[in-house]
Amino acid sequence: MNIVLLSGGSGKRLWPLSNDIRSKQFIKIFKTRDGSYESMVQRIYRQIKAVDEDARITIATSRAQVSSIHNQLGSQVGISVEPCRRDTFPAIALASVYLSEVQGVNPEESVVVCPVDPYAEEEYFQALKELQQQADKGEANLILMGLQPTYPSEKYGYIIPADNKKVSRVLAFKEKPDAKTAGEYINNAGALWNGGVFSYKLGYMLRKVHEMIDFDDYNDLVRKFESLPKISFDYAVAEKEEHIQVMRFPGQWKDLGTWNTLTEAMEEHCVGNATMDDGCDNVHIVNELEIPILAMGLKDVVISASPDGILVSDKDQSSYIKPFVDKLEPQSMFAEKSWGSFRILDVGSESLTIKVTLKAGHGMNYHSHRNRDEVWIVIQGAGQAIVEGVTREIRTGDIVSMKAGSRHRVIACEELQLIEVQLGRDISKNDKQKY
Amino acid sequence: MNIVLLSGGSGKRLWPLSNDIRSKQFIKIFKTRDGSYESMVQRIYRQIKAVDEDARITIATSRAQVSSIHNQLGSQVGISVEPCRRDTFPAIALASVYLSEVQGVNPEESVVVCPVDPYAEEEYFQALKELQQQADKGEANLILMGLQPTYPSEKYGYIIPADNKKVSRVLAFKEKPDAKTAGEYINNAGALWNGGVFSYKLGYMLRKVHEMIDFDDYNDLVRKFESLPKISFDYAVAEKEEHIQVMRFPGQWKDLGTWNTLTEAMEEHCVGNATMDDGCDNVHIVNELEIPILAMGLKDVVISASPDGILVSDKDQSSYIKPFVDKLEPQSMFAEKSWGSFRILDVGSESLTIKVTLKAGHGMNYHSHRNRDEVWIVIQGAGQAIVEGVTREIRTGDIVSMKAGSRHRVIACEELQLIEVQLGRDISKNDKQKY
Repeated sequence: MNIVLLSGGSGKRLWPLSNDIRSKQFIKIFKTRDGSYESMVQRIYRQIKAVDEDARITIATSRAQVSSIHNQLGSQVGISVEPCRRDTFPAIALASVYLSEVQGVNPEESVVVCPVDPYAEEEYFQALKELQQQADKGEANLILMGLQPTYPSEKYGYIIPADNKKVSRVLAFKEKPDAKTAGEYINNAGALWNGGVFSYKLGYMLRKVHEMIDFDDYNDLVRKFESLPKISFDYAVAEKEEHIQVMRFPGQWKDLGTWNTLTEAMEEHCVGNATMDDGCDNVHIVNELEIPILAMGLKDVVISASPDGILVSDKDQSSYIKPFVDKLEPQSMFAEKSWGSFRILDVGSESLTIKVTLKAGHGMNYHSHRNRDEVWIVIQGAGQAIVEGVTREIRTGDIVSMKAGSRHRVIACEELQLIEVQLGRDISKNDKQKY
Repeated sequence: MNIVLLSGGSGKRLWPLSNDIRSKQFIKIFKTRDGSYESMVQRIYRQIKAVDEDARITIATSRAQVSSIHNQLGSQVGISVEPCRRDTFPAIALASVYLSEVQGVNPEESVVVCPVDPYAEEEYFQALKELQQQADKGEANLILMGLQPTYPSEKYGYIIPADNKKVSRVLAFKEKPDAKTAGEYINNAGALWNGGVFSYKLGYMLRKVHEMIDFDDYNDLVRKFESLPKISFDYAVAEKEEHIQVMRFPGQWKDLGTWNTLTEAMEEHCVGNATMDDGCDNVHIVNELEIPILAMGLKDVVISASPDGILVSDKDQSSYIKPFVDKLEPQSMFAEKSWGSFRILDVGSESLTIKVTLKAGHGMNYHSHRNRDEVWIVIQGAGQAIVEGVTREIRTGDIVSMKAGSRHRVIACEELQLIEVQLGRDISKNDKQKY
């Protein structure tokens, strides 16, 4: 199975655990059988491999997520990197050309596209295989998955099928309706939710892309990507396609886009350092800070704490978080990188103190800063510091001092933890010259 | 007026803002007219001075609070330092001997004793003066303040007066009763709350202390303090005194011992970096962290965050916090000192990173550590570092490295901020040799 996972934007609705740098897909929140935690993207990857160990998985995403994907899934996954965000049609166009040119997938092979954030069980992944098999048959150009509605949601678009068979012709699409209209669609027309899951033969999509976008090859499409209009796949392709079918999926499926739905999928009420008293009812706590959280006498509340901030919200109310988060200071205090992670410890008027953790065998790029001096103090591990071309072995207790302008990098031989103090008047992450 | 403020223990009921090092009395939570914030101890000090600018104020407390008192009130306040905690009678005994021997107060002068944590207005402080004037008259040896009950509380002891005049003879004391019994005391006997406020002539108390404790002078009492039994003033003195009166106080008075009562006294719903949506009703947030708190759709909830932890509690439920806090890790991440403050930034397996802020003109004592190296990086300000007798001027960007065993201190010429990284296997605050 060729599968493209659309890994979307910043996920502000799951603040403070997701931010511009770390999206909700990468939060390790689901307990696995061995007691460790996995993220949405790790869970879906594991579930796909469980139904098809030969599945070719490609993640369509932005540059900002590449490090997190490599950290969490290793390098065996394909990544179609969008130079900027341009909605689902350009994303699927780029991923399709990537599959053809970079991965060498035959145009006769079918591709399944689905979002990275549904929370589902094995039956859903079996259904993805059936979707691909239906596309293989060639009865239609596009096969959509139709999710059996559990309530008249206002959050989804609806697909009106021609009949109530497992696979039906699509009669019409309906934009997100109000609850009353949604109820009528469901009761009178057997309408199904459109969860953005579909399958097609790669050759079909390549023809569509070439019809709509003027480009030569993959590299040319990457270059032109920023100039493409923001247009959804449904609007650009699905709603205009005459040879289109829908396949019913009656099983369990959750879209983990809000704290309310996310906590429903959590097996444990507390993740991280947290305590609640017996007076708490339907409370979930996700604490990524080292300090303890104590919850007492609360009902239907989600508490989430990260170095970015602390949310305490009534669960229903948590769906309306986005405008509040937009107003908060955007500074992100924690980030995962391909080489490890960093955490901001202190923000001074002319200083910034961070803790840097490098994974064994990894290093930062060789770089310098124009406007700041830096000091490293090794608090754990061993490695090499290279400053202005001079290599020095470093280990716990060593101090490395770098003046503004001097080129430097560090490589971890074993896991290496540094306290880095940045000193200067204009400390900015943009003040970085790579070599 | 001579007034002794009893400044009690660790105040775990106001966790995470109060801890073993910083008690609730020192939390800056009350907004003043000029827009800044003051603590309980600053507020009560200001209020006493407003009714009697010549008041001689003595705080009876433990060594752990001395730095905070000097930070918040300066050096004009007297402090009777208890070598350890031994309940209210030994505390009042020591404070009385301190007033006589250290402060030279005449035995004929009256003294008012009251707890440091009531939240009251000017009328209460006027009533303290009246209490002292009543003691001056010499009609009785001990004059208690009787607080007019507002409900049949189970939290207080009760005083039964002989009649309903403003000043009455005390007929009896009643230990903390259940609510039903408390109602009967109030309705049938005109009982008053015993808030631990009273006045006496210093000579009377000195005689009582010498009757009950065998000691020579103030220094001898300090030495013997640890051997004294833990006994309350009510039990040791008040309940046995025949010449005892109660003076009614019918005005506003709140005991700020729990989050529920404390938040009732707060003028603002948010202190610190906090946002709440319109769906929040009767919610208070006190945030001492730099990261934002967002509260949505909550009712009757208190949220408090400090470097020690995060509390989210239904207000009524918050009275039952103590056993939960007892179970939490006791590590305190922030402390005020006479020379400034420190905050723990990172706890490693063999390292500890802290931010130290020294006030201009202040310094640490000359000291050394047996088991850890230390590194200072100056991130703001200027001062002097003295290591093994060698003095060096330091300013922003300078690095000072100290091996285990080397004596060191730092003095701030202007406000000085340091990142201190401690490195070693057995990092402990007890590993400190002073010179």
